[in-house]
Amino acid sequence: MPVHDSPALAAVRDALVAADRVVITTHLRPDGDAIGTEIAVARALQALGKTVLVLNTDKVPRNLDWLAEEQPAGLMAVYESGDLAQAQAVAEADALLVVDANAAHRLGAVGDVFRKSGRPVLLIDHHPDPETWFDAPCVRTDTASAAEIAYELIAGIDPALVDRAVATALYVGIMTDTGSFRYSATTPRTHAIVADILERGDVAPEPIHISIFDGRSREGLALLSASLATITTHYEGRLATMFVTQDMLRQSGAFFDETEGLINYGLSLDGVLAAVIFLELSSGVKLSFRSKGDCPINQWASRFGGGGHANASGAFVKDGQLSRTIKDVVDSAPMHIVAPGATEDDDDDGGLSEADLALLAQFKGSID
Amino acid sequence: MPVHDSPALAAVRDALVAADRVVITTHLRPDGDAIGTEIAVARALQALGKTVLVLNTDKVPRNLDWLAEEQPAGLMAVYESGDLAQAQAVAEADALLVVDANAAHRLGAVGDVFRKSGRPVLLIDHHPDPETWFDAPCVRTDTASAAEIAYELIAGIDPALVDRAVATALYVGIMTDTGSFRYSATTPRTHAIVADILERGDVAPEPIHISIFDGRSREGLALLSASLATITTHYEGRLATMFVTQDMLRQSGAFFDETEGLINYGLSLDGVLAAVIFLELSSGVKLSFRSKGDCPINQWASRFGGGGHANASGAFVKDGQLSRTIKDVVDSAPMHIVAPGATEDDDDDGGLSEADLALLAQFKGSID
Repeated sequence: MPVHDSPALAAVRDALVAADRVVITTHLRPDGDAIGTEIAVARALQALGKTVLVLNTDKVPRNLDWLAEEQPAGLMAVYESGDLAQAQAVAEADALLVVDANAAHRLGAVGDVFRKSGRPVLLIDHHPDPETWFDAPCVRTDTASAAEIAYELIAGIDPALVDRAVATALYVGIMTDTGSFRYSATTPRTHAIVADILERGDVAPEPIHISIFDGRSREGLALLSASLATITTHYEGRLATMFVTQDMLRQSGAFFDETEGLINYGLSLDGVLAAVIFLELSSGVKLSFRSKGDCPINQWASRFGGGGHANASGAFVKDGQLSRTIKDVVDSAPMHIVAPGATEDDDDDGGLSEADLALLAQFKGSID
Repeated sequence: MPVHDSPALAAVRDALVAADRVVITTHLRPDGDAIGTEIAVARALQALGKTVLVLNTDKVPRNLDWLAEEQPAGLMAVYESGDLAQAQAVAEADALLVVDANAAHRLGAVGDVFRKSGRPVLLIDHHPDPETWFDAPCVRTDTASAAEIAYELIAGIDPALVDRAVATALYVGIMTDTGSFRYSATTPRTHAIVADILERGDVAPEPIHISIFDGRSREGLALLSASLATITTHYEGRLATMFVTQDMLRQSGAFFDETEGLINYGLSLDGVLAAVIFLELSSGVKLSFRSKGDCPINQWASRFGGGGHANASGAFVKDGQLSRTIKDVVDSAPMHIVAPGATEDDDDDGGLSEADLALLAQFKGSID
């Protein structure tokens, strides 16, 4: 299968092939695409005899521990300030590689270390508007995942580098970032790449899906059950909101990261265009916005100090009270999502109804 | 892309190409693969100028209504005894085609009509052990979906027949029957076919996923929330059971078909090998068995008068009482699923504990 190449990708590839020592990093709270892309490139470079370190500010998420555990000892490390071996690895690197993130603030402490090192920094990413400090950036906003770019990078060196380890990591990246091949960025090329990596790596998809998605805890299911009871729709069913209070988290016994994905239940309601979940923290309220199709919600999120993609954004309202924050978000919805006939003053349908307030009152938390 | 052909597939293809009039059917309670395969073949044959009728015993499931509505008027019909036009279509057909089912009892009334018609009956299916009455059977148990065989059938006539309508139907079949490309039967060929149909049909996957999966009702989510509260694990967490009583269905206001998929939540628990859901009907208890990986549960289901695939089976216990049926199934688990160290007498861990009985008692239904 011919590689989809470009001068920008070739520049990254040439720099990596020429390097003896490479350090790779990715964004804070790394996801499947971040970890999968890092590991795929790292393993391919190791197979070429290079010294490689994957150095992240944050640790691998729990549902990817199995993938990290399959890697050779010493390949991956979590950054520790003052760790001399890590500092030396960066200082002596011939190339530093950032994947799946294009802004310094998304990289945490390792981003600062990379920028101050004076070593050449390469980038492979699929997000728009990269910062300008990368020495060799390859940005493809038309790919669904950074792992697809990593495939083109690796196959462009030698398709035989796509062994089981590389294929597994690439599959994790592509599959998770496309929502199991669902999201609109999924292309014929996405599937053609997956056909090739499953074949070359002799990889079976199901055990990977089980490892990533079937590690639910009883506590996580209890939290899901409780959060489903908070779903409320507004503006004739076009907006769904739901929330998780500190007490719901405590009573279920779930970890905070088990709130991930809950918002998809609000979004899955028939007729809903956008959904927002409100997560009550001790320091404020964390908001996640999601929408379907042509209904951008990033401007709406930025109204609350956040931002993100057109269909997936987030924000954090510091010191926000839960019910007040919900009301503010619901009231501002008509200015940002497609809600024909609805206005900001649409008190009948938008905002918090008596029923909403009664629902909120059922959940003890720091609700004003 | 070269077609994966075979003499059996070529025989079906030749018979369809030679026919002027074709009637197509599939199994009772048709799913995405059944409907998608029927429509893909029907539309391709229509494009070749043939007269085609898709005639099913059962109607299209609600989450595929949108796909049926996109078809030309008169292409699809639900069988009605005594409908002369339907009887005539079968009697005058040059070929009858059965897809995604290989046994008469799976076809309902249309199966009887086909068998009594004396017309040649063709088969494309991916289930094992086909009955012997088909005139030209093409059975490929190594494909994840009947729609993949339909792709090889259609592309073998002319790849240009894979237009948007055909591609959409094929995508629905492949995507739904692979669990969005998750299940073990998903192969490199599966992804290569999807790459080709997305390209040829200019099909975007996300709207299809939204149409099929994002039509949840408030009532369906309420039922999900209630059923999650019934999840119990047995045998050191290797078996999960859950149930839906008639009262839970009434109180949530959900349709019975919204119980579909609930069992996956039991199966998604960390460490669970198999899950069973018990659906209380007025006439007895319907059981669904699911398992992960190498843990066949069809023998277990057949103990209760049912059967199915190694990882997905069902049964119906006529006049069964809910709590008694749960106890019988849980007690018999060690004889059928991999549960090292557990025995049928393992009362500590298996069977219904006091806590299980208390949980059951919370749900008013016809519980003994």
